[in-house]
Amino acid sequence: MSNPGLLNELVAALRCLPGVGPKSAQRMAFHLLQRDRDAGRHLARVMAEAMERIGRCRQCRTLSEHALCATCASPKRDASLLCVVEQPSDIAAIEQATDYRGLYFVLGGRLSPLDGIGPEELHLDLLRHRLHEGGVSEAILAISPTVEGSATAHYITGIAEGSPVRITRIAHGVPLGGELELVDGGTLAHAFAGRTHL
Amino acid sequence: MSNPGLLNELVAALRCLPGVGPKSAQRMAFHLLQRDRDAGRHLARVMAEAMERIGRCRQCRTLSEHALCATCASPKRDASLLCVVEQPSDIAAIEQATDYRGLYFVLGGRLSPLDGIGPEELHLDLLRHRLHEGGVSEAILAISPTVEGSATAHYITGIAEGSPVRITRIAHGVPLGGELELVDGGTLAHAFAGRTHL
Ligand SMILES: [Zn+2]
Ligand SMILES: [Zn+2]
Repeated sequence: MSNPGLLNELVAALRCLPGVGPKSAQRMAFHLLQRDRDAGRHLARVMAEAMERIGRCRQCRTLSEHALCATCASPKRDASLLCVVEQPSDIAAIEQATDYRGLYFVLGGRLSPLDGIGPEELHLDLLRHRLHEGGVSEAILAISPTVEGSATAHYITGIAEGSPVRITRIAHGVPLGGELELVDGGTLAHAFAGRTHL
Repeated sequence: MSNPGLLNELVAALRCLPGVGPKSAQRMAFHLLQRDRDAGRHLARVMAEAMERIGRCRQCRTLSEHALCATCASPKRDASLLCVVEQPSDIAAIEQATDYRGLYFVLGGRLSPLDGIGPEELHLDLLRHRLHEGGVSEAILAISPTVEGSATAHYITGIAEGSPVRITRIAHGVPLGGELELVDGGTLAHAFAGRTHL
């Protein structure tokens, strides 16, 4: 069409969502405009607010609109257990699949020097501090078993040296090279229960 | 989690999009927050604006932010041809698949008395006026070949009586009971070229 217009702008903007191609972006735009404008208005409002207000928890670095996330702030969680994950989405997967009641630390990725991701990008100083300040008895590494994930786990084992923290790693069942968040819940629960000492 | 929070609100709001389940809504939220906040801000802004500003073209009733849509306003389109479709998305499909250069009329659905969709809901008075005011020589019905679609086509043939408009219907290739917008472009182009006199 000659004039792109607001409708086409909406279709184009929807394509920033992962897994949304031109066809489904168009379907989404038409659906909202023809059948659910209130939902579209609500989504636009929540999305704008989330982009501004959601930051990182200062203790575990998961996404949170508060300085301290709900999990870190909860007195019901066992603060002697610390599960180290790559992404906030891994926390959601673990919470849904297991009965883990400890706390978390979110790396935000894996060590990958070629991509410019070093210890600083993963906030490993903050993790080192957490492991050495006392209170944590076990750190469970729930990191994808890729080459970079293994290097990251190895590095964390190094920074834990001299602390009383026992480092374990979730084990059996996570497919090699697999992304943690794509693993089914049963497999993940099994891997969690079968974690081994590093 | 105890406190739903803004992140969970965003995940829930994303589920208003068609085809988006809990898993993909979560993936979308994390993607925007971790990797593309600018795109998220832009999408939120465009979506809010689209929900407020996009209405219906007063002539063809497609979605448009202007009183007269770009197609109706274009002097390059052949105003003697009028293609009657169910939804605005059908226009997009026809524009992409065929070399049709006429104008459109969007019904917004099919006659379905049991669902409370009668001639008024489909703005058939506006279509009647259009057919009788002169200027249109052929009206091409590009309506899904379902029971309700056939009833709608029959009704339109009726309101065209006494006008000089020749009513045709797109034919071969559109699968029976199929939704027009799901048909591949080649089939649609074929059906368009092979339209028959009603
Ligand atoms: Zn936290
Ligand atoms: Zn129009």
